[in-house]
Amino acid sequence: MSAKVAIAGFGTVGQEVARVLLNKSKNLKNILGLDFSVVFVSDSSGSVVKNDGINLKRILKCKKEKGSVTEVEKQTSKLKTYEDSSVPSIDYDVLIECTPTNIKDGEPGMSNMLNALKQGKDVVTSNKGPLVLDWMSLKNAAKSNNAKLKFEAAVGGAMPVINLANDALIGNEIKSVRGIFNGTCNYILSRMTAESLSYGQVLSEAQDLGIAETDPTYDVEGIDTALKVAIIANAVMGMDASYDDVKTEGIVGITPEALKLAKEDNKVVKLIGEVENGNLEVAPKLVPAEHPLAVGGTLNVASIKTDLAGEITVTGRGAGAKETASSILSDLISISKMRKN
Amino acid sequence: MSAKVAIAGFGTVGQEVARVLLNKSKNLKNILGLDFSVVFVSDSSGSVVKNDGINLKRILKCKKEKGSVTEVEKQTSKLKTYEDSSVPSIDYDVLIECTPTNIKDGEPGMSNMLNALKQGKDVVTSNKGPLVLDWMSLKNAAKSNNAKLKFEAAVGGAMPVINLANDALIGNEIKSVRGIFNGTCNYILSRMTAESLSYGQVLSEAQDLGIAETDPTYDVEGIDTALKVAIIANAVMGMDASYDDVKTEGIVGITPEALKLAKEDNKVVKLIGEVENGNLEVAPKLVPAEHPLAVGGTLNVASIKTDLAGEITVTGRGAGAKETASSILSDLISISKMRKN
Repeated sequence: MSAKVAIAGFGTVGQEVARVLLNKSKNLKNILGLDFSVVFVSDSSGSVVKNDGINLKRILKCKKEKGSVTEVEKQTSKLKTYEDSSVPSIDYDVLIECTPTNIKDGEPGMSNMLNALKQGKDVVTSNKGPLVLDWMSLKNAAKSNNAKLKFEAAVGGAMPVINLANDALIGNEIKSVRGIFNGTCNYILSRMTAESLSYGQVLSEAQDLGIAETDPTYDVEGIDTALKVAIIANAVMGMDASYDDVKTEGIVGITPEALKLAKEDNKVVKLIGEVENGNLEVAPKLVPAEHPLAVGGTLNVASIKTDLAGEITVTGRGAGAKETASSILSDLISISKMRKN
Repeated sequence: MSAKVAIAGFGTVGQEVARVLLNKSKNLKNILGLDFSVVFVSDSSGSVVKNDGINLKRILKCKKEKGSVTEVEKQTSKLKTYEDSSVPSIDYDVLIECTPTNIKDGEPGMSNMLNALKQGKDVVTSNKGPLVLDWMSLKNAAKSNNAKLKFEAAVGGAMPVINLANDALIGNEIKSVRGIFNGTCNYILSRMTAESLSYGQVLSEAQDLGIAETDPTYDVEGIDTALKVAIIANAVMGMDASYDDVKTEGIVGITPEALKLAKEDNKVVKLIGEVENGNLEVAPKLVPAEHPLAVGGTLNVASIKTDLAGEITVTGRGAGAKETASSILSDLISISKMRKN
């Protein structure tokens, strides 16, 4: 079957999604019988629309060379550019929403997603903001318009948590989910432990390597982890949680001495996010060194406790454009296969 | 929607599936809208048929107290017992095949599954034999009769490997799968390492604890792991592999000295099964102690290497009736939801 895709947001993730759809188009068609055409792409400069499919190679080249999608050469009369970035009333099936996370008002992601769902379009997103700011509106809009909303990419990058709990473990009662959901914090704590360095020293190193942002607040204060914990609580445990419901402590106050003491006791300190019995928490915790949660580097990990399957732990890369595109692609395929059935 | 289920094989797994369907029937109905009724149960004594649903509490009690399902009291005229264990031509939707694994001719599982698929019935199984003895016949029977065949329970107990690779990571090219797929071997190697004990000493201990069978050949020679490797190769990598295609070495020859040497080098020895570039192998391997594959006890683990998501590792309990029933239930729900769409 064929599906028309709209991509809102053409930063590193949006571009990578386009690249993956371009590179994999043959396999998607031949192996899975899925034929995706991208009919809309937007960035902060505006948007591009073409009903019979935008040339992805050309739009990626344009974005790379000119910095915006609206600078694309209009070779055909069917290609239209707009100054407005919002998705117009065009014919499409699935919105891939990958505008940046905004935890103040969720925009422009919130409007993009709500509008799409209200028109009965399916939505796949990596955008955390709307999912924690007004989960119930999104959930209800999807339900009442018989549309699907999937967001594996918003939680663990390439690491499947939502789909693992909700699909592979379906039928199980999910008792708790806990894990490491921020690779920057994990890198900092792992390096501090391994090299007996101070928080400040490792933070500078991480910034030099591009692992930490110039303003690291969002990661090191535990905000990013808290957003992900709220999303898991909503999607997996059926809660209606927002960011404020998560008791959050970051890693800024952790000293090399504390890590050394932990190490002597064969333990490591990890920034753990968890949902259990309605409690949502993010805090540095002691983890036994040989525990499945004790993964190092920038890895993410999630342990899902269930009634039948016991504890299932999954580890993978929590960030990166390719990794995020992987989860978006899986959600896109899964949605398209459901429509096909 | 409602589905009629046939359960072939009523050993520990079959009974646990019945128990789970009984205990979860309310939640399955209320949360997922799925109403399962079991219309057929067989064991080596014969079979029981009731078109409007067998009383699961009663059949479980009968099996427990009298050792066979055919001893059930025939309170209603609709309940029929047969000396024949094979699935008769009755009205049902999904066969849950959990007769014991037989790697000689796959029977009775092979006939049960093929007959069901040829009638267009979906099949969920934990039975490894048929999947490695004649994968192509099963695959083709499913395909040409538009029936579904799912077997997560055959590989890692509760640990999702097939569904993780084929669903949660769909769209990814799977480059390799490697892991620990036998809890008995993992227990023996972990204990030998931790306590510097000989293979024979730990084997006796494992037998006393019920972790190893009286005849441990199937586990310790790597046969069980090899079967699982072949199933993964077929289901995830699109191969047509059988048991003979797996180069197999077990753990019998491993000495405490070898484990000690590994430990001094911060490594552990694990019985690793792997599929990569068409090569299938089971052998004891050195694994760095902090590698995600280095899990202890009776745990299973699988690392799936992909083009987009990088390496995704999943850990969980590889055996146990409840754990196996968990995977069977997830497959059953997934199949039923597909039919619903």
